[in-house]
Parts: sequence; structure tokens; C-alpha cells
Amino acid sequence: MKAFIEYVAAELSMEDPKSEYPNICAGTDRYAMYKVGPVLSVSHGMGIPSISIMLHELIKLLHHARCTDVTIMRIGTSGGIGIEPGSVVVTKTSVDATFQPKFEQVILGKTVVRNTDLDESLAKELLQCGIELNQFHTVVGKTMCTLDFYEGQARLDGAFCSYTEKEKQDYLHKAQEAEICNIEMESSAFAAMCKLSGVRAAVVCVTLLDRLKGDQLSSSHEVLQSYQQRPQILVGYYIRKQLNAKVKPC
Amino acid sequence: MKAFIEYVAAELSMEDPKSEYPNICAGTDRYAMYKVGPVLSVSHGMGIPSISIMLHELIKLLHHARCTDVTIMRIGTSGGIGIEPGSVVVTKTSVDATFQPKFEQVILGKTVVRNTDLDESLAKELLQCGIELNQFHTVVGKTMCTLDFYEGQARLDGAFCSYTEKEKQDYLHKAQEAEICNIEMESSAFAAMCKLSGVRAAVVCVTLLDRLKGDQLSSSHEVLQSYQQRPQILVGYYIRKQLNAKVKPC
Repeated sequence: MKAFIEYVAAELSMEDPKSEYPNICAGTDRYAMYKVGPVLSVSHGMGIPSISIMLHELIKLLHHARCTDVTIMRIGTSGGIGIEPGSVVVTKTSVDATFQPKFEQVILGKTVVRNTDLDESLAKELLQCGIELNQFHTVVGKTMCTLDFYEGQARLDGAFCSYTEKEKQDYLHKAQEAEICNIEMESSAFAAMCKLSGVRAAVVCVTLLDRLKGDQLSSSHEVLQSYQQRPQILVGYYIRKQLNAKVKPC
Repeated sequence: MKAFIEYVAAELSMEDPKSEYPNICAGTDRYAMYKVGPVLSVSHGMGIPSISIMLHELIKLLHHARCTDVTIMRIGTSGGIGIEPGSVVVTKTSVDATFQPKFEQVILGKTVVRNTDLDESLAKELLQCGIELNQFHTVVGKTMCTLDFYEGQARLDGAFCSYTEKEKQDYLHKAQEAEICNIEMESSAFAAMCKLSGVRAAVVCVTLLDRLKGDQLSSSHEVLQSYQQRPQILVGYYIRKQLNAKVKPC
């Protein structure tokens, strides 16, 4: 998150050579938060429960701070399905492990189903940014969100595995037929909570590998590092473009 | 986790004044890991997805390192139900938000139900340690594990709330009738995975508040800090007792 805020500060020409960008949430172990200009960068941990705690608290913070015209974007990594590693996927809809576009929130012991569509116009604008940047492959597609990284994503290399390579491949190919481009672990709760709050939101994840070809990362450390920078390059470009448009309306 | 390893090092008289207890997992953002003598202390983030990634990787590590006679304990904080804040709850069984003793793991899109009982004899030994220490209230009881901290735990102070104070109280009182002592967010996956691996396991959480009386922490920072040390005091005492018994069999 600190790396992102340093990147954005440079992108927006808001660097302060004396600034150390302090962690605003230094008093807690839960998250780290950094700010430059109108941009807040917050870590969210791994998985739906972790990101949902952060979002509850962030949404309350934005409300009390009377922020308006807010856009929230999750940037991160994911496993691709049938697309070139290093591709950046802008999520259209988040689906669950049965490929359904929904998020099940348990409230007072009862399951409530929530919508997981992400903002369509924002996804298109981000895709356009990818085309303008012309540095890496950017697509808009469905993202599968799971509760587990190993068994939940059909990996064969966890501590337990009760299925065969063929069963794994059948499952992942079905996901591909359902037009799922990538798999990660936060998008469904993120989409549902942002939608409930009326906040424009996007999920922008790079794929580190093609899960149809394996479970483990095979690219070099340098290549993976460069992949991980792609969502921040795309989102940084989008933020600069938005702010420039506001300063100089045409 | 570093605080715990420093505490255990002192408790086991294994302190090395020159040692800085380096983070063994410093190369990743995922977790922090520290080691002293036969004790490994690992952070697990918040929620089931986060702890399940750590456990998959820890169980594989322990297997490849040929560790035997392993015991895994989760120490942490929780919300109490009808018990004095500062009480330490040793979990007997982890139940879900419908009070059922089960963990649902989604594998290849299908739900598999797993057992969430924790080691009964270990829980009894930890309770006995609490009695011997005689520093705070220690109980063995059921723990409810939820996927969310706000709506999932019937809090009224999240970003969204679709229920009344009365509905919240009805739900929490039903949990109390079901003999649930506390609520946290990791125990069910933890219990299920340790059981599947054949590893003795315990969940030891202090309660920071009584949820029947409110949602927010009202104790002072100092009091909360002292509460948070209680699980490590209990587990540190247990470890010392076990190691002493091994060195000097009687």
C-alpha cells in the first residue's frame, strides 16, 4: 500500500521529498493506510472476512469525513483461467465457487443474498485506460471469488487434496465455459458492500499464472514483481486522467 | 507474534540477549513467523480464508520438516456471551452462525461438511493450567465462528444494519442458550484442518467485552492490553509444564 501511494504521488506530481507517508493506522495491527492528495491506499488482508471488516470501517470513515464522489478500487493478484499470465482483469461481475453472481451474507444466522455486479461504466473506462497505456493485456470479465486458496480453488498442492488432476481440470474448464477469467478471494464481498453503499467500485487484478496449466508460480521473481505493478499502473493512470479532467474540463 | 515468542523465550529460560528473533517469513507480506526452541509462533490474519492459507502451508512445512508430536494452538481475542470480560475461553467445539458444530468447505463447487471438535484432553489440561495459575477466569465452552465481524456477529455499529436491537438481543440470547461462550472468526476452519491432519489443537481466546451488554470496547487501553496477554500467559504456562514433564519424567 505504501508502494502504491508513492507511485500515485509521483504519478500525480504530488511527491513531497520530505514526506515519509506515515501509516495513518499505525495504532492497529489490522490494516495499513496511506494518503496522498485525494487518494487513500488501504491494505485489506486476505479473504472476504478480512476485507469486509476493513470496508465496514472505511465506509463509516468516509461517511463521517463527509467525502463525496468516492470511487473504491481493489487492486491485487489472482490466478487466471485460460489467459496469458500478466494479463490485467477488470471484474465485470464476481461469481462464487458454483459460478453464480451472488454473495451470501449470514445475518442473525440467516443467509441474505447480495448482488455482486461492479460498476459497468467504470470497468469500461479502466479498459480504455489499458488500451491507451498499451503496456499489457487488459480485459473485462467475470472473476470467481472463493473462501479458500487451496481446496477452494481446485489446487492439488495444499495440505489436503481429495480430488484428481482430471476432476480439477474439469472444474476449471467449466469455470472457463462460464466465462470466468480469473480467481481471487475478496471481490464478491467487496462488490456487494460497495453496491449497498452506493459507491462506484472496481476490482483490478493481474493474473500471475494460468491455472489450466498449473498450481504454482513458474515465472521469475522479477517477472512476478513487474506483473504485480500492472494494476497500480492502470489505476494510477486512471486517477491522473480523472483528476486532470476535473482541473481542466473540456 | 513477536511479543509471544519473547514471552515464551523468557518463560522457558531460552532468552538470548543478543537474539532479535528474526521474522522467518520476512520475504512475504502474508504472515510473520518466529521461533524459539521447539515453539513456532505464526500470525494468521483475520478470518477463515486467511487462517486456512496459513494452516495449509504450516501443515506442509511441519510435514517436510518431519516434526512429530505437534500441538497447534490459536491464541487471540473474542467477544464473550454472558461471561465477564477478561475471561479466557478454551474452545470445546466450534459452531457456525446457526449454532451447528460444523465447517463447510467448498471443494470443486460442492460443499463438504467437516467436524469442528477440538481435542478434549488438551482443553482439560489447559483448564487445569488456568486453575493452577489462578490469575483469571478460565472456562471450556463452545465458540461461535463467523465470516463477518459486524452483520455476522449481530453488531449494530457496522456500515450497514438491517435489524433492531431487540432482534440482535434475541439472536445473542439464543446463542447463549446453545451454550456458546464466545464469538470469533477462525476457530471452525482451524479445528477442521487440525483434525483432518491428526494434530492436537486448541483455541484459547480472551473475551474483550460481553456482547449481551454492547458492541464496542469500553475498557481502558491498559485493561484491554492486560486481557490480551492472558491467552499467552495460559499457553506459555502449558508449554513450560509440558517441556518440564518431558525433561524430568516422574
